[in-house]
Amino acid sequence: MNIALVGCGTVGSGVVRILQTSTESIRQRTGRSIQLRHVVVQNPGKPRNVDLSGIAVSDDIQSVLSDPQIQVVIHVVGGISPAREDVIRLLNSGKDVITANKALLYAHGEELFALAGKLNRTICFEAAVAGGIPIISAVNTALTANRIISIEAILNGTSNFILTRMLDLRQTYDDVLKEAQTRGYAEADPMMDVDGTDAAQKLSILTWLAWGTWVRLEDIVRQGIQQIELLDLLVAQELGYRVKLLAISHLANGRLEVSVQPTLVRSGRAVAMTNGADNIVSIEGDAVGLVRISGAGAGQMPTASAVIADLIDYATGRAAITFQSILRQQAMPPVSLQPQEELSRRYYLRFTVADRPHVLADIADILGRHEISISSVRQDETEDIDDESGVARLVIMTHRTTEGRLRNADTEIAALSSIRGDRIRMPIAD
Amino acid sequence: MNIALVGCGTVGSGVVRILQTSTESIRQRTGRSIQLRHVVVQNPGKPRNVDLSGIAVSDDIQSVLSDPQIQVVIHVVGGISPAREDVIRLLNSGKDVITANKALLYAHGEELFALAGKLNRTICFEAAVAGGIPIISAVNTALTANRIISIEAILNGTSNFILTRMLDLRQTYDDVLKEAQTRGYAEADPMMDVDGTDAAQKLSILTWLAWGTWVRLEDIVRQGIQQIELLDLLVAQELGYRVKLLAISHLANGRLEVSVQPTLVRSGRAVAMTNGADNIVSIEGDAVGLVRISGAGAGQMPTASAVIADLIDYATGRAAITFQSILRQQAMPPVSLQPQEELSRRYYLRFTVADRPHVLADIADILGRHEISISSVRQDETEDIDDESGVARLVIMTHRTTEGRLRNADTEIAALSSIRGDRIRMPIAD
Repeated sequence: MNIALVGCGTVGSGVVRILQTSTESIRQRTGRSIQLRHVVVQNPGKPRNVDLSGIAVSDDIQSVLSDPQIQVVIHVVGGISPAREDVIRLLNSGKDVITANKALLYAHGEELFALAGKLNRTICFEAAVAGGIPIISAVNTALTANRIISIEAILNGTSNFILTRMLDLRQTYDDVLKEAQTRGYAEADPMMDVDGTDAAQKLSILTWLAWGTWVRLEDIVRQGIQQIELLDLLVAQELGYRVKLLAISHLANGRLEVSVQPTLVRSGRAVAMTNGADNIVSIEGDAVGLVRISGAGAGQMPTASAVIADLIDYATGRAAITFQSILRQQAMPPVSLQPQEELSRRYYLRFTVADRPHVLADIADILGRHEISISSVRQDETEDIDDESGVARLVIMTHRTTEGRLRNADTEIAALSSIRGDRIRMPIAD
Repeated sequence: MNIALVGCGTVGSGVVRILQTSTESIRQRTGRSIQLRHVVVQNPGKPRNVDLSGIAVSDDIQSVLSDPQIQVVIHVVGGISPAREDVIRLLNSGKDVITANKALLYAHGEELFALAGKLNRTICFEAAVAGGIPIISAVNTALTANRIISIEAILNGTSNFILTRMLDLRQTYDDVLKEAQTRGYAEADPMMDVDGTDAAQKLSILTWLAWGTWVRLEDIVRQGIQQIELLDLLVAQELGYRVKLLAISHLANGRLEVSVQPTLVRSGRAVAMTNGADNIVSIEGDAVGLVRISGAGAGQMPTASAVIADLIDYATGRAAITFQSILRQQAMPPVSLQPQEELSRRYYLRFTVADRPHVLADIADILGRHEISISSVRQDETEDIDDESGVARLVIMTHRTTEGRLRNADTEIAALSSIRGDRIRMPIAD
């Protein structure tokens, strides 16, 4: 079987390495020998830390499109363009595609899967969500006997690394982010990771697989971790919780509630104990109950491991069957979304306020008028007071209330003259 | 597609229930409609809590064997006989088989898989190990790009329930076992669960899949939890560990070390946090790193969920491909076993001793002569002293040493006149 690789960066060179070191075990698994014939990269002259001798290296995907012997193409290039155009051209040329590009599938999955279905081609995408964790395969094959009730997951390793490290080292968000960038755990521009976009895109793909609904970013209650302070993590810990950037889709009264938010999770739970750059996906099925899968959600070799698993699945013929099954299942009516305002949870609220009289009364009054019931309040004497002006941090835990009420209350609270800086709102998942 | 069910006990009736409630989603997944034509049970007249109307119920498997329209048979009967004879007859009659019987696969898997291979038939067995946790599928498909380095697992829910409950409620082994039996978590005769046999059988199947080696019970360093006292759990907890009945296979210098023992696991680790009747399997692959999968390892619906996942896999044609791939992969040379005596770990040792002079010196002397180095000793003043005679509990933590040295030392220690009752030996997995 002849294959091509488009993109030979971090993941691509990991793929080449496994192909070269595991030739014999791949042959045993698949019963076929696999030949990497083409590598397409932007700069063919650039020295690589993998051996590409004997492979045609080019900067033009046309070399792949016009080679009739290529059946399947591993496409590991990030971004939307030209990835989308590449995949469309590959499918139209009769090639099957293995991709690790979650942003592409989020933005154009519907179009690409439909095109592949029409052309009777296959798209494999295990590596697109949660790297080495076999979550796509779990949803598509192992848990097929179940009606999925909920997905609760840590899908962004950078955010999880930052939150873990802040608490472990008692450091600020900015200090840890700098360390993460130095160590290569965070991009130079980490916005998509820390604002929840990356996790939301992955959650959208999982939600589509589980319930047939393509959820758009704007339909997801989404908050990032940029405003989280060490104080929030410490208070949460004292109350018996860990703060995690949790991606949740779950069925409530026949509708889907979808959110990506820093969330207080009970300390003993597996999700709370998932630390560092690890990811975890916890799926509840009506028959199986809770199944949790965790591991490295990103990184060269874990992602390459998922790509090669797809390749082996493809070479045996399983992948084509699974893809047809996905397309058939998507013909079922999709589940509709719960409006964001109606999501109902308990909340942790934290305000930075001027340390002067009547501040708490003002905030409590606004919450009360919006029918948000307070379960506990905490404002410690603190040495952590800014130099220029006395500010204090006020933490309020609420009883169950709706996202809509909180948003309305927050607009009023933001307008109070005593409010300084960010207002933090985190749901509580017991 | 026409199918038959042999056995309609707990798991079997769960299978019938999913078949009846998920007819439409199974049809979407597989593109076929599945018809349950035969149910074979010991007592066809017995009232069932599932609706078998329209299905031929019989006490003779011959009705299945002689029906040429039956392609695949779900065989959910425990024990070795007549299960082995049934499966052989089914395969010989051209039927494929889905089984949940780990004891059967442990004892006769080699024979049955070879027979199926020869006859070009398929055996599916996701439900045989760890119930609803898709671990067979993970090893056979999702992690295929990896050379497996280690498997570390909690594979027996009954033992894990007992150990969790003892610590949570500060109760004795006997009290918790009685509760577990009352609540149906433990069998009337729980020996196979608590002595490690059940976990060892499941570990043997996983070890075969990962490394092609069929490990026999007698080749596994195996200890049960029956002698564990609450004191052991409390001391371990104070030292920062949880005690888990851990099933481990791992490669060390090209050889497999295989053991099932109560083990001290660092408190923060996912394995240590797996409580109650849950199972967890943690697999280390050379590319993917650690992947952990946890969930309900037994129970009616989780096990039925795994059986139906196999059925869906079978109906789509994936299962046959996977089974051929397993057989091909097993043609690779198996990995040889490390002799039990050479397993090298740190250990927790606990002795119940007469509370009189020179006891510690005697034990320390024996350990020293066997070159077992002590890292810490602990003998608390305790109120937990038997009425008739003063006994004390002595806990010794060792530096890294071998199973062989410990066994030799233990023989000598057992002969000391100061030793009372059980001697506990638990490895430490950091």
